[in-house]
Amino acid sequence: LPMDKGKRPLRGVADRAESRLIRQIARAALGQQSVGRGRLRLGIGDDAALLSPKPGFETILTCDWFLEGTHFLSAKHPPDSVGWKCLARAVSDVAAMGGTPRYFLLSLALPASRRGRWFAEFLRGLRRASQALGCELVGGDTTGRPEILINVTVVGEVPNKHAVLRSGARPGDLIYVSGRLGEAEFGLRHVCAHKGRLSANDPHLKKHLYPEPRLALGSWLAEKDLATAMMDLSDGLSTDLPRLCTASSVGAQIEAPKIPVVQVPERRPERKHDHPLELALNGGDDYELLFTVSQRNAKLVPQSFQKLKLTLIGRITREKDLLLIGGDGRKQRLLPGGWDPFR
Amino acid sequence: LPMDKGKRPLRGVADRAESRLIRQIARAALGQQSVGRGRLRLGIGDDAALLSPKPGFETILTCDWFLEGTHFLSAKHPPDSVGWKCLARAVSDVAAMGGTPRYFLLSLALPASRRGRWFAEFLRGLRRASQALGCELVGGDTTGRPEILINVTVVGEVPNKHAVLRSGARPGDLIYVSGRLGEAEFGLRHVCAHKGRLSANDPHLKKHLYPEPRLALGSWLAEKDLATAMMDLSDGLSTDLPRLCTASSVGAQIEAPKIPVVQVPERRPERKHDHPLELALNGGDDYELLFTVSQRNAKLVPQSFQKLKLTLIGRITREKDLLLIGGDGRKQRLLPGGWDPFR
Repeated sequence: LPMDKGKRPLRGVADRAESRLIRQIARAALGQQSVGRGRLRLGIGDDAALLSPKPGFETILTCDWFLEGTHFLSAKHPPDSVGWKCLARAVSDVAAMGGTPRYFLLSLALPASRRGRWFAEFLRGLRRASQALGCELVGGDTTGRPEILINVTVVGEVPNKHAVLRSGARPGDLIYVSGRLGEAEFGLRHVCAHKGRLSANDPHLKKHLYPEPRLALGSWLAEKDLATAMMDLSDGLSTDLPRLCTASSVGAQIEAPKIPVVQVPERRPERKHDHPLELALNGGDDYELLFTVSQRNAKLVPQSFQKLKLTLIGRITREKDLLLIGGDGRKQRLLPGGWDPFR
Repeated sequence: LPMDKGKRPLRGVADRAESRLIRQIARAALGQQSVGRGRLRLGIGDDAALLSPKPGFETILTCDWFLEGTHFLSAKHPPDSVGWKCLARAVSDVAAMGGTPRYFLLSLALPASRRGRWFAEFLRGLRRASQALGCELVGGDTTGRPEILINVTVVGEVPNKHAVLRSGARPGDLIYVSGRLGEAEFGLRHVCAHKGRLSANDPHLKKHLYPEPRLALGSWLAEKDLATAMMDLSDGLSTDLPRLCTASSVGAQIEAPKIPVVQVPERRPERKHDHPLELALNGGDDYELLFTVSQRNAKLVPQSFQKLKLTLIGRITREKDLLLIGGDGRKQRLLPGGWDPFR
């Protein structure tokens, strides 16, 4: 029968090359696939994955874009960081609910030129994240494309009625953040200012290249019913705190001197524009947790949790304004400084 | 505090414009959101969606790309067809397991120029599919991008132990397909050959623009334990049948004269290259079901199911070859004619 490939530009799926790619993904990123054991009935290779939900748990479902040119630059970002981060940032949404990640789907569009070394390195980072975060690849979709496009769906679980939403903050609750804010943004600026590829070992780049979702903290806060509301900081405190407040129909006051900011090295004069507070308020990609705790329970929140610093930065108010109180006691409105991809 | 947006090209999320977009999606595509009722605990607007799995059911998980330039052309395809089809094709994977779709996540990257009428029409098609297929939008991710990028994740459910896999076909089993094959490919060629936009009402375009996943048939076959193996035809019989056979470690013989092929209108001389059998074997996007049934149960398969034609086209063999038997009795190897996006 005559073939006529040139005339069929619009097809969703592939055959031999795609099968090869899927086998490569399955081999490299999985290794430890648990089909048959545990609650995964069926992984890669059928029409869909099959999971047996755990009785007494709710299912968490989230997805995230990770696109070349929008979220990473091939010329700048090491491929294993792309592999790590595409999964870590989606898993962070599960941490933000107090849940535990279980499975993920990888949708990948790849140029032919990236199917060699770049792809092997990417899979190495993805596999490392999959193992570190306890999140197993169970399926996905692949296609060819001039630019690298990634979408990751994560399925997690949380004990019934223990998920922490954005909407539970009440007036008087205290506001906490984990870690230091602005570190990822500082790393991003460092990457953008630098010519060529960077050493992935630079400590200032670690949080930008290999963010760590705060899973242990999130599930501890959920299990103990300590957090009244919680979310992860993906777009910067000045953008994310208003989201939590809107969801909870409350306002907030935060104190600038209390915010745990990135430590900018002094001997980098070229970085003088990097104001630590501005980085902390408006920098994205930190994937730290922002959470609220009732005053009554505040004494149960430790100063650090498994070496991760927890800092009280303000309180929830009945008035719906968002105020930033300076070191001199002056109040100003907190304005969202997050970047808007549609502008 | 100073803003410095020009320097921050790499950010995953948005603020005002993205919020507007999400509200628009939530309003238009949902309407009927069932949060609080049923098994959806939390939909759009938090870090992730929360679902309560139904006891006695397994969870089906699948995702699909739908990309401008790869899977559809803005200049050719009506936006409501893009909305319908991006969901329908992902739901088809659930039909192929014998399951019922429940929830979906929409990941959307959109150019600013498409945020007006195009987007409203897209949402109309998406909403129509969501209602027709019983599949509810519960979350997603949005960003800006010069081209329209879509990824859809679908969550479905199937009664424990009733999911139909690709791997269950046994030698001697009979091979069936639903509907007529090649219709979507015929529609695609019609679209590509035609200058400008087409009428969405052209009956030859319906299956290409608004495919209907065979949910009722799939779940009936699963419930009755009739199908030993099943998958949906997304890449054409010549590509998909080998996949089912590989998964089952078997071969197959199919008879060319028995294959229910697209009816090509005779009074279209410009379409003389459209050989119906070639369209049926190698055309993709039909989303019909391909399934196998043991000889013992063959009498239980009706000639049509809810007006959808079911056709016996061949049988599974122990020898792992894939053979096509012509009207003259001559056998030839069935070669995959699916299009490979990586070539």
